[in-house]
Amino acid sequence: ADVKKIAVIAGDGIGPEVVAEAEKVLKRTEELFGYSFETEHALFGGIAIDEKGTPLPEETLEVCKRADAVLLGAVGGPKWDSNPKELRPETGLLGIRKALGLFSNLRPAVVFDCLKDASTLKPEVLEGTDLMVVRELTGGIYFGDKLRRQGEHGEEAVDTCVYNVMEVERIVRQAFEIAQIRRKKLASVDKANVLETSRLWREVVNRVAPDYPDVEVEHVLVDNCAMQLLRRPSSFDVIVTENMFGDILSDEAAMLTGSIGMLSSASMGEGSFGLFEPVHGSAPDIAGQNLANPIATILSLALMFRMTFGYSDAADAIEAAVAEVLNAGHRTGDIAVDKSKAIGTTAMGDLIVAAI
Amino acid sequence: ADVKKIAVIAGDGIGPEVVAEAEKVLKRTEELFGYSFETEHALFGGIAIDEKGTPLPEETLEVCKRADAVLLGAVGGPKWDSNPKELRPETGLLGIRKALGLFSNLRPAVVFDCLKDASTLKPEVLEGTDLMVVRELTGGIYFGDKLRRQGEHGEEAVDTCVYNVMEVERIVRQAFEIAQIRRKKLASVDKANVLETSRLWREVVNRVAPDYPDVEVEHVLVDNCAMQLLRRPSSFDVIVTENMFGDILSDEAAMLTGSIGMLSSASMGEGSFGLFEPVHGSAPDIAGQNLANPIATILSLALMFRMTFGYSDAADAIEAAVAEVLNAGHRTGDIAVDKSKAIGTTAMGDLIVAAI
Ligand SMILES: CC(C)[C@H](C(=O)O)[C@@H](O)C(=O)O
Ligand SMILES: CC(C)[C@H](C(=O)O)[C@@H](O)C(=O)O
Repeated sequence: ADVKKIAVIAGDGIGPEVVAEAEKVLKRTEELFGYSFETEHALFGGIAIDEKGTPLPEETLEVCKRADAVLLGAVGGPKWDSNPKELRPETGLLGIRKALGLFSNLRPAVVFDCLKDASTLKPEVLEGTDLMVVRELTGGIYFGDKLRRQGEHGEEAVDTCVYNVMEVERIVRQAFEIAQIRRKKLASVDKANVLETSRLWREVVNRVAPDYPDVEVEHVLVDNCAMQLLRRPSSFDVIVTENMFGDILSDEAAMLTGSIGMLSSASMGEGSFGLFEPVHGSAPDIAGQNLANPIATILSLALMFRMTFGYSDAADAIEAAVAEVLNAGHRTGDIAVDKSKAIGTTAMGDLIVAAI
Repeated sequence: ADVKKIAVIAGDGIGPEVVAEAEKVLKRTEELFGYSFETEHALFGGIAIDEKGTPLPEETLEVCKRADAVLLGAVGGPKWDSNPKELRPETGLLGIRKALGLFSNLRPAVVFDCLKDASTLKPEVLEGTDLMVVRELTGGIYFGDKLRRQGEHGEEAVDTCVYNVMEVERIVRQAFEIAQIRRKKLASVDKANVLETSRLWREVVNRVAPDYPDVEVEHVLVDNCAMQLLRRPSSFDVIVTENMFGDILSDEAAMLTGSIGMLSSASMGEGSFGLFEPVHGSAPDIAGQNLANPIATILSLALMFRMTFGYSDAADAIEAAVAEVLNAGHRTGDIAVDKSKAIGTTAMGDLIVAAI
């Protein structure tokens, strides 16, 4: 049989706990659907700093490179926050994105029925919100030259934002393709009234748009987009933008759904290779206490099945199982209205496994 | 008597209409409080492009420079949107900020009682929201070198983000001082886990913080801030950040109050010199129809009285007059629940003048 290789990176904080539940789900889908997976675990982030002296050990990269996809829990925590740059978990995160060529970050922001009230937005405004932020992930000001120097007015710091036509075109085309299988609306977000990189971005969008005549495109300035997400979230379908703007807008979009603890994300490279992870962080305050919600990680696995392996039957089954368990009223502490009835991480995982 | 000089720039779209109402208010405060103002009008933005061939004519700069403060309506419109960069209203805006040394943009985001329901946020979340974004306005990626060049992968565009210690320190100290006369909380927003300019920013904040021991400081990453503004808007007091982040976050903050049509802003230079303008734009769709809401511009004038001239009696009187007129139920179309009872721009201005 066709054995798929998955690199599993538990990471820090609640990472190991939520990843363990996703691995149970993985095992169960093997049994039920006859798929075959081989997992290989690797150290990354804070734990890798502690054990290997670097957030992204060479062997971790090797494990990822020989895999078909990567499942990531979460990285980071206060323990490493005041480390020098080279010894910080985020540096590992930026490094793995670049090394694996993960140029596209897909961040769906959907409202879960059972969490409608968790949003700070009025329900009638949120109604029908289902959008996807497509964020460029290996370019822009994140990866441009950085330096310190002495200037006329004391020390100065410099960051450089660079984009070339190839980088813009591949992410923009991907966003158009995603829009084609969704509601066929694309908002391209930039700051073309100020930035040269944004003007290049807009030129590329306008040049490739005729290749996707069924998709309606609008250009939205980033400041205006930050407002419109609040004003009319349900009017957006796919939003495509550069790295820094995408960082800000995808978090804003996730938060307004009220479902941030349940959202999955995919960082895609060339072909079908991707890294899948929950949107939430490592939550060190609740780590190791069987309190974390494993749903976002389990849904990230479903996303992997769909996007990397094309196993949509298994992806459908997992998503349906999650919905069933939620509809039956089971909640982890983060999403429970009545906290006294909340169940733990492993219990939630078991229920979902049983429901598949 | 001490005659204060005000440069009045009506600008485009609804600019002339709302500025005209603010001028009526100006005249009335002269009569009532014995202050003396001399106004000088100047062309700026789209109208300056049309009449003088440049968005920021040299004589407009001269008018501003010999004034004690500038009152600005709004600039821009679709008519000039596809012009080359040098012939766009925004270019004038960036130019006037730089030429007048307006390094600090103060954007209060408050909830007006009568507009509570206009927000898309739940009223209980919004309750007590009263924050001020202090945005650095003459540095960062807005003003760094920009270029196009041929790269390995086709054409590429570059923007440069530069900050020096002096630029960061003056805005950060101003934010601390503002926090001292407010609720004594300062959130400094950066992306120190990625950007060198943010690391410099954070160093400066940490270095000067001991000079303001009564102010509680927190460092917030920009992506997290975009989320927390939605999650807990009322917990913020003063937010200080660099130019690009401030552009995005101040608009997000303004929108979540639901009061965007009523908010004023100040762009301050050295000393008490400042440019005062409504947060809303030029709204070309309703221009010339006596439909615009002049309140944000009138409140911008009050802000000028307070910040540039120290005329807090007149500022108080104007703000009280606006509150009185709103409490009496008068509304322009943008804020009217029952649109059929909406009054026009001039009627609203007259009512406020009468109430002072
Ligand atoms: C941790 C940080 C470097 C990272 C980013 O800014 O990309 C995070 O915010 C994210 O969005 O994955
Ligand atoms: C028009 C544009 C250049 C400007 C900016 O980005 O500064 C505007 O959005 C603002 O906030 O005043």
